[in-house]
Amino acid sequence: MISPVRWEGDRLVLIDQTRLPSLEVERGYTSWPEVAEAIRSLVVRGAPAIGVTAAFGIVLAARQSRATTFDGLLADVEAAIKGLAATRPTAVNLFWALERMRRCCLDHRTLPLDALKARLLQEAQAVLDEDVAANRAMGAHGAALVPHRARILTHCNAGALATAGYGTAGGVIRAAHAQGKVALVWVDETRPVLQGARLTAWECVKEGIPHRVISDVAAASVMARGEVDLVVTGADRIAANGDTANKIGTYALAVLARHHGIPFYVAAPFSTIDPALPSGDLIPIEERDPSEVRGFAGRQTAPAASPVFNPAFDVTPAALITAIITERGVCRPPYDFSR
Amino acid sequence: MISPVRWEGDRLVLIDQTRLPSLEVERGYTSWPEVAEAIRSLVVRGAPAIGVTAAFGIVLAARQSRATTFDGLLADVEAAIKGLAATRPTAVNLFWALERMRRCCLDHRTLPLDALKARLLQEAQAVLDEDVAANRAMGAHGAALVPHRARILTHCNAGALATAGYGTAGGVIRAAHAQGKVALVWVDETRPVLQGARLTAWECVKEGIPHRVISDVAAASVMARGEVDLVVTGADRIAANGDTANKIGTYALAVLARHHGIPFYVAAPFSTIDPALPSGDLIPIEERDPSEVRGFAGRQTAPAASPVFNPAFDVTPAALITAIITERGVCRPPYDFSR
Repeated sequence: MISPVRWEGDRLVLIDQTRLPSLEVERGYTSWPEVAEAIRSLVVRGAPAIGVTAAFGIVLAARQSRATTFDGLLADVEAAIKGLAATRPTAVNLFWALERMRRCCLDHRTLPLDALKARLLQEAQAVLDEDVAANRAMGAHGAALVPHRARILTHCNAGALATAGYGTAGGVIRAAHAQGKVALVWVDETRPVLQGARLTAWECVKEGIPHRVISDVAAASVMARGEVDLVVTGADRIAANGDTANKIGTYALAVLARHHGIPFYVAAPFSTIDPALPSGDLIPIEERDPSEVRGFAGRQTAPAASPVFNPAFDVTPAALITAIITERGVCRPPYDFSR
Repeated sequence: MISPVRWEGDRLVLIDQTRLPSLEVERGYTSWPEVAEAIRSLVVRGAPAIGVTAAFGIVLAARQSRATTFDGLLADVEAAIKGLAATRPTAVNLFWALERMRRCCLDHRTLPLDALKARLLQEAQAVLDEDVAANRAMGAHGAALVPHRARILTHCNAGALATAGYGTAGGVIRAAHAQGKVALVWVDETRPVLQGARLTAWECVKEGIPHRVISDVAAASVMARGEVDLVVTGADRIAANGDTANKIGTYALAVLARHHGIPFYVAAPFSTIDPALPSGDLIPIEERDPSEVRGFAGRQTAPAASPVFNPAFDVTPAALITAIITERGVCRPPYDFSR
């Protein structure tokens, strides 16, 4: 299994996703600020993977702490929570995982500090294990929606690399492939960071899943040719009404799928749902550096003098989403995740 | 004025568009096979510019010819027509310009060969001059459709670089800008060859037109935010019923514009219309090398083992086109270009 985030001995190990597909490099981390930088710089990305990584970031913060009292340790942990929370604003799994680690810390305040640190490691590992289990459950629920000889279009990477392993949308594809149902996966390259071309295509090659990479702009043509049976993507945050923030370009695919009468599915664990937000227009959308759009891998493409708008995510209204696949089952509209 | 195609002394001079925006390089051509290669490799691109370039390619073929009889010269010209016609299949201006040069040759068969060659140069120059005049007329007709403080979204490059100068869709923007109507141009980067980021943004910088470059996938978000008043693109071939082939990604924009209630305009000279084709599904769509999608600015992005689908154009059904702006005026649906 592809394990983009794992604990090994006394350190967190991440696959460096900025180097894929050219190089398969792992990096070890023993301090939380390095982990925050890894999240910020996309060494690790994907809402569930960010959540799991942040949980281990808190483990490292506790282990780095020289505090001799619970209050001292808690202060160090809170500082790390603040630092890790400031890395990326859109994916809610990050905040969910940090809150879970804070809760774990507070719930075990009476333990000796070494035992508390061990308990935090156990909790982070549980976040990881539960994520993989949730993905497998999503895969099973989602595969039931996939027809035989399906041509599936996906965007960005919501595969094993975006999670603790197996994948959300990628898990649905993986499970359907295991059942012999997948004729072809259309892989949107996903500008500007190319997670589709670099990561999803790499996973497909690794797993022998039949696929073709397309420029994002070609998705509409492929739909018009009748060569897409369903679209499935992941999510970075789902509002209580089902509005879904995901990688920039997802919303366009949902509009195009509706225009062509193609089902459009979102696959995400419950940790991606933000019941506190009534609708998607309240989801904060990260804007990333213009250099991502002005060039790639160090090569400039647009004039340096050209202003750029580079939102990393967009919001797909619930009305365009055929169903949301979760680990608890398949949700159909009208969505209500407010409780 | 930006002149991507021009005749100078005894040679054809092209701006090498593959080097923009980093380098402004001109290249001289004295033989038609080099011109064919320049078209194939996108040194020159854009339907009208390809047509003008091919016309001068025929001038070079005639000048290269060592024939001493009209029939000998015609045979050499026909070979060049065949070679130039084989470069790119979708833009009809190419075939239109070559046919016009063939007709000119046949119409002047009684001239001494040197005079005939001079007449061919005169004809190619007329193709060029008429293209610029048509663009200026399109600009005037199109600018009348542009509201004050307009935010205009465009795709690929249909500017001066795509024509003999001034531009089709780019000409509409240029004319509206000259009238003080343009608040902002949203420039789609236009994967895989990035004509938007590289060429349209370069033209905007040169002319001081306010603009912002976006990844193609961000166009839907910008529309949803209410920040696009109209979309205008060029065309590579327009069928008799108004169905329009243009750069891959245009069709998606037309669907998105319709979804958001935004007018979608096409600007193209009559030489882009193919009255012989009843509908767009008959337009041949060029598929280009997978390396365009597997890499970016010379860097490999997708795994070498990943198959790719790389159509260079798509077809927008006439029903999604608010109006077609030509040098003769603005055409509204139902379109009928069969005569």
